[in-house]
Amino acid sequence: MKLYTSHRAPNPRRVRWVMAEKGITDVELVEVDIMAGDHKTAEYRERVGVPHVPALELDDGTTISESVAICRYLEALYPEPNLFGVDAREQAIVEMWTRRNEFYLANPIMLNVRHTHPLMAALEGAQVAEVAAYNRLWAERFMQTLDDRLAEHEFIALDRFTIADIVAVIGLDFARLVKYRPPAELTHLARWLETCRARPAAAAGI
Amino acid sequence: MKLYTSHRAPNPRRVRWVMAEKGITDVELVEVDIMAGDHKTAEYRERVGVPHVPALELDDGTTISESVAICRYLEALYPEPNLFGVDAREQAIVEMWTRRNEFYLANPIMLNVRHTHPLMAALEGAQVAEVAAYNRLWAERFMQTLDDRLAEHEFIALDRFTIADIVAVIGLDFARLVKYRPPAELTHLARWLETCRARPAAAAGI
Repeated sequence: MKLYTSHRAPNPRRVRWVMAEKGITDVELVEVDIMAGDHKTAEYRERVGVPHVPALELDDGTTISESVAICRYLEALYPEPNLFGVDAREQAIVEMWTRRNEFYLANPIMLNVRHTHPLMAALEGAQVAEVAAYNRLWAERFMQTLDDRLAEHEFIALDRFTIADIVAVIGLDFARLVKYRPPAELTHLARWLETCRARPAAAAGI
Repeated sequence: MKLYTSHRAPNPRRVRWVMAEKGITDVELVEVDIMAGDHKTAEYRERVGVPHVPALELDDGTTISESVAICRYLEALYPEPNLFGVDAREQAIVEMWTRRNEFYLANPIMLNVRHTHPLMAALEGAQVAEVAAYNRLWAERFMQTLDDRLAEHEFIALDRFTIADIVAVIGLDFARLVKYRPPAELTHLARWLETCRARPAAAAGI
């Protein structure tokens, strides 16, 4: 298998982090330079269908985009350590938190960065200040929800580290591009963030 | 189990549609009046954790929010007819298209409606014209991608109807609130939409 990936981009980093947690070493990494537009070439679009990284090319030629779909596929092939839940109930809880972390934290942060960071103007086309502000507001509202959750739980979804934590940490890390830090009063969020950032796999794909 | 649901809201409709496809009748339906703010009461937030519908309360008291997490949970309990893929490869393809349909079609349409429809002002707080326009642009770009896909496939993800189709149809149906119709030149999209809307389960939750 081949993984089309970009260093420093947040969504490919989710897959690289999962690979590092699971010790997956037999996937060939193909670096895609998104600042140079390598994901917009006719060849790349033909292969993947959309101008996105990451994408996983299977041995039968099928290519899967969408980071969480790729991570779940890798979980099926390399089940240990479990990151998506071991039964239907756990899987539902993990997917619920993974989706919340994407929709209300990681995606709003990404849109804020794309609409404010000078280097992102080339990727985004027109940067819209109202879009940036609206998304920052959404993300900060949800950080409070996470802080409440983490006041009573070591990790976000289950009593162990899961894909939900990976998605949230990477979302918050991406905000560092515009020198954003979560509000200092969210002490449970800060404690959890430090724990997750200390994992060896956190360095994969940066 | 109990499903907290709202008639006419798009995300609960995904769950109702899945239940109808699978013939699930042993889930109690609890109507939540979101226009009256029933999802923002202290009791509802205490139960679900977030002010969202749908939410599925399991018999052990655990409550799952996030429509796709609920649908996947129901698939585990009621496997037939299969809507999420039968093996890891199919599941990856279905999840890829489900996510694309959410992120690039259903969510942008929802944000467009929330930022333009007069009745949505109460839900949204401040409606921002730039947010509405930006999201409509994203949705229309992706409709072209779907039309290309449907030129060569009967359904979006696999050669049969899946959750990916459900998410896309409901997204497009929601746009009817603001009298939006997809561009007429997208004839493959129109053919597929008509096929999906003709399924008996399409009426569930409306």
